[in-house]
Amino acid sequence: MAIQFAPPTVEQFFRTYRITTFAVERDERRLIFSTNMNGKPDLWALDLDRRYPFPYPLTSLGQNCGGILPDPHGRWLLAALDRDGDENWQVYALPPAGGQQVPVLHAPGQKFFPMHVSEDGRWLYYTTSQGNPVFLNSRRLDLETGADELLHEGAGGTTLLVAVSPAGDAFVTVESYSNTNNRAYLHRDGRRVPLFRTDAPHSTFGAELTDGDTVYLLTDEGEDVHYLARYDARTGQFTRLVHIEGEDMSGLRLHREGNALYILAVKGVGDRLYRYDIASGALEQIPLPYDTIDDFRVGKSGTLYVLGRSAHLPFNISLKRPGGGWEQLTDNRVFGVSASELRDAEVVRYRSFDGLEIEALLFRPLPERANGYTVVWPHGGPQWAERKAYRSLFQALLAAGYVVFAPNFRGSVGYGTRFLKMVERDWGHGPRLDMVAGVEWLIEQGIAHRDKIFLVGGSYGGYMTLLLHGRHPDYWRACVDIFGPSNLFTFINSVPDFWRPMIEQLVGHPERDKEKLTEDSPITYLKHMTKPMLIIQGANDPRVVKAESDQIVEALRAQGTPVEYMVLEDEGHGFSKLDNEIAVYRRILEFLARHQVEASQGAGGQG
Amino acid sequence: MAIQFAPPTVEQFFRTYRITTFAVERDERRLIFSTNMNGKPDLWALDLDRRYPFPYPLTSLGQNCGGILPDPHGRWLLAALDRDGDENWQVYALPPAGGQQVPVLHAPGQKFFPMHVSEDGRWLYYTTSQGNPVFLNSRRLDLETGADELLHEGAGGTTLLVAVSPAGDAFVTVESYSNTNNRAYLHRDGRRVPLFRTDAPHSTFGAELTDGDTVYLLTDEGEDVHYLARYDARTGQFTRLVHIEGEDMSGLRLHREGNALYILAVKGVGDRLYRYDIASGALEQIPLPYDTIDDFRVGKSGTLYVLGRSAHLPFNISLKRPGGGWEQLTDNRVFGVSASELRDAEVVRYRSFDGLEIEALLFRPLPERANGYTVVWPHGGPQWAERKAYRSLFQALLAAGYVVFAPNFRGSVGYGTRFLKMVERDWGHGPRLDMVAGVEWLIEQGIAHRDKIFLVGGSYGGYMTLLLHGRHPDYWRACVDIFGPSNLFTFINSVPDFWRPMIEQLVGHPERDKEKLTEDSPITYLKHMTKPMLIIQGANDPRVVKAESDQIVEALRAQGTPVEYMVLEDEGHGFSKLDNEIAVYRRILEFLARHQVEASQGAGGQG
Repeated sequence: MAIQFAPPTVEQFFRTYRITTFAVERDERRLIFSTNMNGKPDLWALDLDRRYPFPYPLTSLGQNCGGILPDPHGRWLLAALDRDGDENWQVYALPPAGGQQVPVLHAPGQKFFPMHVSEDGRWLYYTTSQGNPVFLNSRRLDLETGADELLHEGAGGTTLLVAVSPAGDAFVTVESYSNTNNRAYLHRDGRRVPLFRTDAPHSTFGAELTDGDTVYLLTDEGEDVHYLARYDARTGQFTRLVHIEGEDMSGLRLHREGNALYILAVKGVGDRLYRYDIASGALEQIPLPYDTIDDFRVGKSGTLYVLGRSAHLPFNISLKRPGGGWEQLTDNRVFGVSASELRDAEVVRYRSFDGLEIEALLFRPLPERANGYTVVWPHGGPQWAERKAYRSLFQALLAAGYVVFAPNFRGSVGYGTRFLKMVERDWGHGPRLDMVAGVEWLIEQGIAHRDKIFLVGGSYGGYMTLLLHGRHPDYWRACVDIFGPSNLFTFINSVPDFWRPMIEQLVGHPERDKEKLTEDSPITYLKHMTKPMLIIQGANDPRVVKAESDQIVEALRAQGTPVEYMVLEDEGHGFSKLDNEIAVYRRILEFLARHQVEASQGAGGQG
Repeated sequence: MAIQFAPPTVEQFFRTYRITTFAVERDERRLIFSTNMNGKPDLWALDLDRRYPFPYPLTSLGQNCGGILPDPHGRWLLAALDRDGDENWQVYALPPAGGQQVPVLHAPGQKFFPMHVSEDGRWLYYTTSQGNPVFLNSRRLDLETGADELLHEGAGGTTLLVAVSPAGDAFVTVESYSNTNNRAYLHRDGRRVPLFRTDAPHSTFGAELTDGDTVYLLTDEGEDVHYLARYDARTGQFTRLVHIEGEDMSGLRLHREGNALYILAVKGVGDRLYRYDIASGALEQIPLPYDTIDDFRVGKSGTLYVLGRSAHLPFNISLKRPGGGWEQLTDNRVFGVSASELRDAEVVRYRSFDGLEIEALLFRPLPERANGYTVVWPHGGPQWAERKAYRSLFQALLAAGYVVFAPNFRGSVGYGTRFLKMVERDWGHGPRLDMVAGVEWLIEQGIAHRDKIFLVGGSYGGYMTLLLHGRHPDYWRACVDIFGPSNLFTFINSVPDFWRPMIEQLVGHPERDKEKLTEDSPITYLKHMTKPMLIIQGANDPRVVKAESDQIVEALRAQGTPVEYMVLEDEGHGFSKLDNEIAVYRRILEFLARHQVEASQGAGGQG
């Protein structure tokens, strides 16, 4: 007989798990992380002081975690958990061994964003929707007495607490008007000092306070990318410290013991990490073990901890001790699929309708698997990007023989602020034509073939899928919309309250921009949506409410367009449960396979 | 407020997982193990060549594994899997990365026991019920051609293949008549050479062939405990090599590269490990990381791998490199329960009705938790023992305040062959009176209080629970029977075919021993079973069929005894699914708590 095995099944590619957030205890003896490694999201721990750390669970709740704050003295852990993806984060305390949870900040329908616990473990600093649903309030809770104090009442824009000084005598808030326009302030002695010099729109990402007077921050004020700057409250002096051409600094962490700052920078589809020595001003690049980094931490010892992904490697956590190399703490792999079966991305560039250069990820299947069909993927966001990060759907499509093409249309992150702003108040024109230009380029290159192209997208990508379907129907065999808004007016009215200040700049105003919003709403082109569709929606989605999808499905059915509609009762905007994720992705692959066949029978020579 | 946590809940104690079997690949770069760590039993792997091995799944079938045999060349793994605890082991091949399984030895309702794969990975040696349901056949399968060859046709007693020579020119079978009476034979050149000298009943545990002529075996022929012996087929010489007073050798593994044998020995409630140097005959004891060892392996490198437990530590796997200390590879702990919450066992001894010394495990709760009640636990088997191995139920009972008492009545393993044989054909007299003597001793010591004693047992322990209830009802508040036979006649007729040769010596003959079997059948004393009962049964149990429990429940209800009956549809003899286990144990604790209350209201001064 000689034992023979079949190639990996489609389902196997979905059997990887997410690691969404992690924390390291102050003594660095434990790493706590949130993962759905056994099917549902829970908190797990790894004892780093063992020769062989082995994961053990701290919760068995099956809920997403929005953040973990360990007590510096190891008496408890704080975790922000929501319910079935509703994003109403509630804060609970867990004993060090886990097993139970006690509510600390808890109010139905409200959101709590825990930000910082003081070194003595007494004060919990947080931002909440409670009492200020639109602009949010920054507060601190005395964990000993239960006394809760208002630090700052948000106004004008969604306002988040982002940094607290070691002594607790100062903190920084950021007031957001959009992803590209916010205002950072230093609060001390009752004063509120602006951390910017002009009124020009700009944004600040992350800030660190080395003391009550000194703020380090990442800002793009006056530049096209974010750079490291220092503000000295004693002298009022603002100093531009480090700027890297073509790299957008996105994350900042202070290593107090090493008098250094660690800076994460986005460069297109990948990330870079730097160490900035505060005393000497020297900047050192630290090679990363993954193409993209989801989160990172610096321990007191100077050990670096990163959570990251590559195009062909799912979420994993690695550590790097001072002077040592990277060592992977987890071993998240694709279930039963060897590394050689997984495909890495090519990074390609093409010119769009107006000459703007667009970068895209291009995945090609193993030659012996190729089926001649292409799946085009407009990413979500829109101020987001498709980057070199494992995506089960892509690898499953590749295994099934599809080419996968994911352009970072104008408005994507990682290409500077000007590029990022191009989608603002223009959801439907430039980005759409970038997608079209990408498809044309793909066809010119002989990589994709007219009448063998599918369109699949989620969230904003679902919106773009609907719009591309309505305005350029001839390109597509069939289209899959996952959580996509079909009507921008309805969408604007249905986003969470605290989004409202930002939504006008990001999308537009229902009255003043009526014409543009009408032009950019997929529903406007309903009669042209003639290709088979699969529409997927989470019943608890707080961002794109189910009514959005119900609306389009109803309308399409009314005009006789073949539509399949899949509603996930216990999901929000995205997937929290592995079984749901697998069910959806399997459905998508079945849908595409079916329309390959139908297509090859149907009319060719389109576009 | 100051964050306060409650003591661990009962359920937490059941949130540990089982590790049932493991294997190490020849190059020792991977350890494969079967565990229900995420709720259902599956195969997992640990890459030992990583600085931080992290478990990843090889299957997602949710079925028990009866054994794992990796290909010496790393091309596949063989695993014996059953279905929902039916113990009909089928053999599958998995690719090294897992994810799928291909049947290798597969026939509905049949059992396959894979024993050995030749060094070249070509030959699979196994024993099967196929074609010989009572006595079993030993065969070998050519994994290249699929040719399957009969090596030995079992007859007279259940016959298992237990060892194969390196060259495949010889093998050893053991023909069993009971747990204490079997016959080992060396098969070579078509001859079948007995590995014993007299007809006196004795038993052989495990054997190793260093070449086609030299067999090392553990036998108790002429002794009260098993010792290491060598048989040389060239000279026909039988040599008694090592005997340890009061220790019963139970496991033997050859380390060919080190020319050594590793020997596991049972000493009462704990285990010991020894290394025997074949050349010098020197015996060295190797301290163990756990009180009891469930399985062990020796890698080519001389690295030891053990799977074990202690009274207050659940299943874990440790390794010990030559010259190094033990290092734990897994970190299986009680969910959310710190080590200080878990109780270790005291080992106590008392004299039984006839002066025989009985050893027992005695667990006392933390003084502040003590509730004054005692749970008496007759173990299963009966030729088994309650040893220092984590038992969720015990720790949950201790946390709830109960004293737990588990006597190793006559017939228990670990106390020599004479003691072990005392339960044969006497299921209901001696062992029962040992239990009664234990309870009386417990009361004399002031540890247990009359009218505050519960009785809980599973399998043979369930039988003993029923019998003790029927014959000594006044001792008990209430009784819990888990999978216990109520009628020895029905039981004898319902055990699997291949048990039949052993069942007569173990229990008795339905006709010849009619009187004794009637005297020892709980059903005989039905009318005296007046205390509240909880009876638990697995629907697929192949050893104690559901009819057994249905029968007693029906009869008890008919006479008005309060009975609760819990049937698990997808379980066999024992628990394969964590959720079922938790449901049953929670039910037991609720049942006992309820009858504490009732008891304190009911009539006192019993016994």
